[in-house]
Amino acid sequence: MLWTIIGASAATLTMFSFIPQIIKAFKTRSVRDVSEITLFQLSAGVFLWILYGIHLKDAVIIIANLVTLASLGILLFLYVKFGGAEK
Amino acid sequence: MLWTIIGASAATLTMFSFIPQIIKAFKTRSVRDVSEITLFQLSAGVFLWILYGIHLKDAVIIIANLVTLASLGILLFLYVKFGGAEK
Repeated sequence: MLWTIIGASAATLTMFSFIPQIIKAFKTRSVRDVSEITLFQLSAGVFLWILYGIHLKDAVIIIANLVTLASLGILLFLYVKFGGAEK
Repeated sequence: MLWTIIGASAATLTMFSFIPQIIKAFKTRSVRDVSEITLFQLSAGVFLWILYGIHLKDAVIIIANLVTLASLGILLFLYVKFGGAEK
């Protein structure tokens, strides 16, 4: 029971961790300081974590990483929209 | 074997995912657009993932999240150093 709470808390915190970044990007309309390599690398890694979670048959890992991947997708869209790649 | 490679690749990509962000912060000396809430929330979440990994006895989860936590620590240090919180 304790471990379920710890796992669920870990999942909740990390899977929604890019929501504040998305909100900040919307507010400031600037993502210049955000690393696009980090966003791409993390997206690729999170995708592989989903596969690994499927292998482990661990719903926590699968769902948490699916939400993270979705928010990274939104962030990459904002990155392009707000021209983060322009120096 | 395939799953070991997928898990190791997932771990490698995500655990080093903030290295490009650290390098970018060093180069530009600016972290204004990086969300400090995201950094704190992710650090807390990654810490709980380490505990959950210990529970699952999964070395991949433990080590990957330890490295992520360390790089988030460096990034938080740079955030304070470069005054990211100043608007």
